[in-house]
Amino acid sequence: MYLRYLEDLAARGHATASSDALANLCGTTPAQVRKDLSFFGSFGKRGLGYPVQELIDHLRQILGLGHDWPVVIIGAGKIGAALAEYRGFRQRGFRVVGVYDNDPAKIGRPWGTSTIRSTDTLDADVRAEGALMAVLAVPADHAQQVVDRAVRAGIKAILNFAPTQLSVPPTVSLKTVNMAMEMEGLAFALTNADPG
Amino acid sequence: MYLRYLEDLAARGHATASSDALANLCGTTPAQVRKDLSFFGSFGKRGLGYPVQELIDHLRQILGLGHDWPVVIIGAGKIGAALAEYRGFRQRGFRVVGVYDNDPAKIGRPWGTSTIRSTDTLDADVRAEGALMAVLAVPADHAQQVVDRAVRAGIKAILNFAPTQLSVPPTVSLKTVNMAMEMEGLAFALTNADPG
Repeated sequence: MYLRYLEDLAARGHATASSDALANLCGTTPAQVRKDLSFFGSFGKRGLGYPVQELIDHLRQILGLGHDWPVVIIGAGKIGAALAEYRGFRQRGFRVVGVYDNDPAKIGRPWGTSTIRSTDTLDADVRAEGALMAVLAVPADHAQQVVDRAVRAGIKAILNFAPTQLSVPPTVSLKTVNMAMEMEGLAFALTNADPG
Repeated sequence: MYLRYLEDLAARGHATASSDALANLCGTTPAQVRKDLSFFGSFGKRGLGYPVQELIDHLRQILGLGHDWPVVIIGAGKIGAALAEYRGFRQRGFRVVGVYDNDPAKIGRPWGTSTIRSTDTLDADVRAEGALMAVLAVPADHAQQVVDRAVRAGIKAILNFAPTQLSVPPTVSLKTVNMAMEMEGLAFALTNADPG
């Protein structure tokens, strides 16, 4: 959360941030901010605030965001396309090394500076690229099968957009972004909102 | 969570589900399942399991998912396109009534059976359609301005894909799906994974 707010501040041209300002943004107290950030080392000078970029760099390193993460995208549909072009990905070190689909009509078609590859080549490609992360954007009914394949190929972390529950071995991290479920959460909030 | 698992079961052709089966799927105990579901009424017959479709219908009604939710999509990019075509949305009662952009090059272009409209028409359209929900898929630096406009137009719930923190009045529900942050969570898990 601190990283996200600090990046927002940096984008708005702030070179330093006081613990008061960070506390305000994060909905906490200046004392809590100082305590939290002191875990990461000694930053800034009393009265001058935290150096925004230095703190960002340090937090990113701690979070494992300092380096380059090759990522494969499985499913060459609109969600895959949105992700492949998403600047925020590349800025954060996520580099799309391959886009895969099992639809013969799509395989071989251009995709950015590359082409869509067959899911059959996933194993060899993942090994060659050293990719540990996959984004899954395939229909729900294919998703488990594709996940199993990705895990066999050596993928260790999966961001899943297929609206279904998937199982992975305990050594693999899985996050599911279910857009329909997010909308349902909002609909629930509307239904139960105080009309006053 | 029950709704999601029940829908999975229905999609696989199950007409009934035992509390044992649901407990297994949900990682809880059969007693807990019976207790949870008893809050929603009396379902099924002892020994026959829960009637999957009946329970789905009932949960959907409780969650406010029984009815039709007109939704506007603001930002006619790839994420907007992915959402507009996402079958899961329509199946769950979310009906896209308009797609908006402020790029003159996009306004008027065909979009499904409709065309992309100017964000300038948002206020009138939202009122005419009775839309309470918006999906926001615009660049981060425009997002707050667009949210303010949507709120003024009467939008009460926003699903935000812009990778930035937004503020809304307390009467408006906001959910942010930050794909870069989800990836960072996975990268963090990889970085800190036990290598053994």
